[in-house]
Amino acid sequence: MKKRYLLTPGPTMISPDTLLEMAKPIIHHRAPEFIPIMEEVREGLKYLFGTKNEVLIFASSGTGAMEGAVTNTLSPGDKALVVDSGKFGERWNNICKAYGVNARVIKVEWGKAVDPAEIKKALDQEPDIKAVMIQASETSTGVMHPTKDIADIVKNYENTILIVDGITGVGVFPLPMDEWGIDVLVTGSQKALMLPPGLAFAGLSDKAWKFVETSKLPKFYFDFKKELKNIKDNQTAYTPAVSLIIGLRDVLRSMKEEGLENIYKRHESLAKATREAMKAIGLKLFAPESPSNAVTAVYAPEGMDAGKIVKFCRDRLNVTITGGQDQAKGKIFRIAHLGYYDRFDIIVAVSAIEFALKSLGHPFEFGAGVKKAMEILAE
Amino acid sequence: MKKRYLLTPGPTMISPDTLLEMAKPIIHHRAPEFIPIMEEVREGLKYLFGTKNEVLIFASSGTGAMEGAVTNTLSPGDKALVVDSGKFGERWNNICKAYGVNARVIKVEWGKAVDPAEIKKALDQEPDIKAVMIQASETSTGVMHPTKDIADIVKNYENTILIVDGITGVGVFPLPMDEWGIDVLVTGSQKALMLPPGLAFAGLSDKAWKFVETSKLPKFYFDFKKELKNIKDNQTAYTPAVSLIIGLRDVLRSMKEEGLENIYKRHESLAKATREAMKAIGLKLFAPESPSNAVTAVYAPEGMDAGKIVKFCRDRLNVTITGGQDQAKGKIFRIAHLGYYDRFDIIVAVSAIEFALKSLGHPFEFGAGVKKAMEILAE
Repeated sequence: MKKRYLLTPGPTMISPDTLLEMAKPIIHHRAPEFIPIMEEVREGLKYLFGTKNEVLIFASSGTGAMEGAVTNTLSPGDKALVVDSGKFGERWNNICKAYGVNARVIKVEWGKAVDPAEIKKALDQEPDIKAVMIQASETSTGVMHPTKDIADIVKNYENTILIVDGITGVGVFPLPMDEWGIDVLVTGSQKALMLPPGLAFAGLSDKAWKFVETSKLPKFYFDFKKELKNIKDNQTAYTPAVSLIIGLRDVLRSMKEEGLENIYKRHESLAKATREAMKAIGLKLFAPESPSNAVTAVYAPEGMDAGKIVKFCRDRLNVTITGGQDQAKGKIFRIAHLGYYDRFDIIVAVSAIEFALKSLGHPFEFGAGVKKAMEILAE
Repeated sequence: MKKRYLLTPGPTMISPDTLLEMAKPIIHHRAPEFIPIMEEVREGLKYLFGTKNEVLIFASSGTGAMEGAVTNTLSPGDKALVVDSGKFGERWNNICKAYGVNARVIKVEWGKAVDPAEIKKALDQEPDIKAVMIQASETSTGVMHPTKDIADIVKNYENTILIVDGITGVGVFPLPMDEWGIDVLVTGSQKALMLPPGLAFAGLSDKAWKFVETSKLPKFYFDFKKELKNIKDNQTAYTPAVSLIIGLRDVLRSMKEEGLENIYKRHESLAKATREAMKAIGLKLFAPESPSNAVTAVYAPEGMDAGKIVKFCRDRLNVTITGGQDQAKGKIFRIAHLGYYDRFDIIVAVSAIEFALKSLGHPFEFGAGVKKAMEILAE
């Protein structure tokens, strides 16, 4: 018997109820029965994004909406300020390069969060920076950046917008667009939204929509203006991923029922339990100062290849966690705790790590991690 | 009780077996168990596209792959020759416009196929045309264009490639890329591939890959070179639509089992039965000369709004067919017959039209359409 546990930062686990909802016979997106689905989904997305504006829906991975955030607000040669603290920060830079946007990069050491003062300094030095691009949560390092503090700075610059990759942020911790002044917020379906990959989302502030009016970068499939026009008619510009949108209605309903505040608290508690458990068995966190509640990155014990822990968990325990990417490869492993997770998933994750370390001959107090996690999760 | 019949040219019906396959717990795209799935899918797509080269897979609607076909082969200011014979021909033109490709358009009357001689004439007049863009099957009019004849022409021009939108062509009638010399062939999941919308595909000839090397149009999400590199490792550049790819393995298996020749024959027979049935009840076909085996477009009886037939079928019979778009709106209705269709679906479709016409007071020999369809389907 093989019971599988998927504990990666995307794709994340999906409720069997949602899976079966999506397995129902498909309907046509121009049929009248699709309209109330879209109406409900639009309202749910506004609630999730904390915005009065429409949230656009694309059939793509999250990266598609990231590309759209750039191509719909900027023009060739525009200056952007990119925070690069990991693999997904690099992606902002690569998108800028592909489209001829002049990106000034703030390099942040992997595992650390950006200092908002650096952003203020850059904007004061180069007031022609049109957009600041950050990750709310950098998935590759498990860092949460101070989005609110950055928004507080950027909103003072009339000709600059803040573009936030919320792919492992939205639905994990608060990112209320309108309240904080986030101008573009992007996410994907396979993270806290508890769906298969294949949907991407983008919310825009009024300020960002003004940038769209003057943007000259080319776009077609990810054309935000065309999508805005369509979504107001409960449609999308091109054939939507119908079954995923039906799943989306299902998860947005359950998120509304649980309530965003409770969802954020749940993630906080699961993340804290994971971090403290890792410390209790003597492991060092990769991002101790500003950890993301989406994913915990942990150093392998000194002298041990982190890949061995990931492999043991997968091959021997049927527990899928992930290793580090690029420069963190072999050094860290990552345990996700976003989306369809409850306390028992954390207990599974922590005990799997303990089983792995024990088998790999690492000396530590066996059971101490799970005990610590349980203490926190009992609260 | 409401039993629903979805007879539109996308989304098309999905086998319950495939739906349940996709409803299984999701797996991680970097996990070892995803590798054999991708390996099988790659082989299946090569078989379907009739090519030795890789077929790229995107999480998007078909339009995304159409955009990619343009942005990955051309450069700003390049000349293209676009056949515009309906809504999807227009789309080629719109994509060219969005990216600064200089499109010369051959306008073809809706309902008619392009004359290949016109393409030869244009290429001889303007030898700097870099790409010819056509639809194999124009979904909005039910026309099949002579792809093979056009390929026979274009392959004589060393500096010109043929880009074919096969969104309602691939898996319906033969479009063997390598044998015919199609340079870029694009399709989507929600047509003959019998899946929900959300996947797009692009196959490229060696000649097209050479164009990719010199192409200077910007691209990021739909970057063919990056995808080619990834697919050889059984991956995609960005998170793939995992559940749809698992469904894809399922449908490709069943297509291989049925065999492409049999699939094409089945579509031919279903399409012929539909066309002859419509004629038997005195209706005129919209594309009598070069009909596509994917979808049959039919004129409503004179003086009757075609929308009324569509509405009656939907609201009273739970049968979803589609009307005309743009200039054909109100004039025609369209019955699809591509993908997960057998003879009884055609009998349902034809009888639904007969029920509708009778109720709407149109005089005709009731039952004549179904009888005609049955005669053909008995063969």
